[in-house]
Amino acid sequence: MILGLGTGSTAAFVVDKIGQLLSTGQLSNIVGIPTSKRTQEQAASLNIPLSTLDLHPRIDLAIDGADEVDPNLDLVKGRGGALLREKMVEAASSSFIVVADDSKLVSGLGGSGLAMPVEVVQFCWKYNLVRLQGLFKELDCEAKLRLVGDGSEKPYVTDNGNYIVDLYFKNPIKDGFGAGKEISALEGVVEHGLFLGMATSVIIAGKTGIEVMTK
Amino acid sequence: MILGLGTGSTAAFVVDKIGQLLSTGQLSNIVGIPTSKRTQEQAASLNIPLSTLDLHPRIDLAIDGADEVDPNLDLVKGRGGALLREKMVEAASSSFIVVADDSKLVSGLGGSGLAMPVEVVQFCWKYNLVRLQGLFKELDCEAKLRLVGDGSEKPYVTDNGNYIVDLYFKNPIKDGFGAGKEISALEGVVEHGLFLGMATSVIIAGKTGIEVMTK
Repeated sequence: MILGLGTGSTAAFVVDKIGQLLSTGQLSNIVGIPTSKRTQEQAASLNIPLSTLDLHPRIDLAIDGADEVDPNLDLVKGRGGALLREKMVEAASSSFIVVADDSKLVSGLGGSGLAMPVEVVQFCWKYNLVRLQGLFKELDCEAKLRLVGDGSEKPYVTDNGNYIVDLYFKNPIKDGFGAGKEISALEGVVEHGLFLGMATSVIIAGKTGIEVMTK
Repeated sequence: MILGLGTGSTAAFVVDKIGQLLSTGQLSNIVGIPTSKRTQEQAASLNIPLSTLDLHPRIDLAIDGADEVDPNLDLVKGRGGALLREKMVEAASSSFIVVADDSKLVSGLGGSGLAMPVEVVQFCWKYNLVRLQGLFKELDCEAKLRLVGDGSEKPYVTDNGNYIVDLYFKNPIKDGFGAGKEISALEGVVEHGLFLGMATSVIIAGKTGIEVMTK
């Protein structure tokens, strides 16, 4: 089985578990396709056999976390910064299972008030930041360049050498597909964190147990 | 006047001329927005005042060359490798004048049989090369990674740190807008060389003189 390996705090548990099951022989014939350098390193350290989309353009199953999950199983992803590689791998997967806790459930995307990331080329990122904020003026959106977060003013750089503009919405996005198209149409935008129509099921952990959402 | 400065062999003559007219005082009050590092260096060496899209998000006029011009003034650009910055600057321009010789005229885009470039992230470029070729199977399209061209197998890297997949069409593209949308929808594609509905006029130099095409 060709298995897409997600990125982030939740996905890291999944990768750990897969490594463990492989080492005990409870799982076999797995080839992992990592969605970030970080996950690649983690999986390699666990001796999970790895490959790439170049060699395996069709993936059987991807498992990853999400930052927001709406009732249609549409997602916001990429707060971990790996949105482009995640989207490439997960779009190539026959099944895409999301694992999240119930704090990630929203009634509409952007509704958590936390970052919705957009990966942009470094060239004239301010120009694109202003344009992105302008797209969602009526949602009272604030756009901010993501910094490395060590107190410095150094921009965060993705695995692909790009910057991330984080969008913070006061009101949720009404039309996710429309928003995605408008964002993608801006020259210099590489990818955005709206994962629409991609998840086949979402496993939600709550205080009272596990719930599986499917389409 | 805020002036977008193109990139390539034809645009280099334009930039030279602007520098000359500024130095003799025949032109004044020009701020140039370069579309590549190469043009930036050329313009700086000619003492043309320069700025960026960040500071000047609205450009009065851009002047650039093109690799192909069709009867609708739609273009193929980017054989010089600067397609993304060219598109960002030229899309922000109120007027966009293209200068080319009549060898660039085609009845349909892709019709020259020469490269139509697509800028892709380095990550899994082969995967995207195969996908791009697959999009245009019925046009007998061949996709090739652009190399630096010094006889080595080293990929050409754009000003934005990406690779270029060149598409060679045996038959011209019928629906440029449709093709552009399909290309852009592939995750990992950063920009493509179809410049559609952007040129306001095209100045064509032929053996018998100059012709100006407008919409």
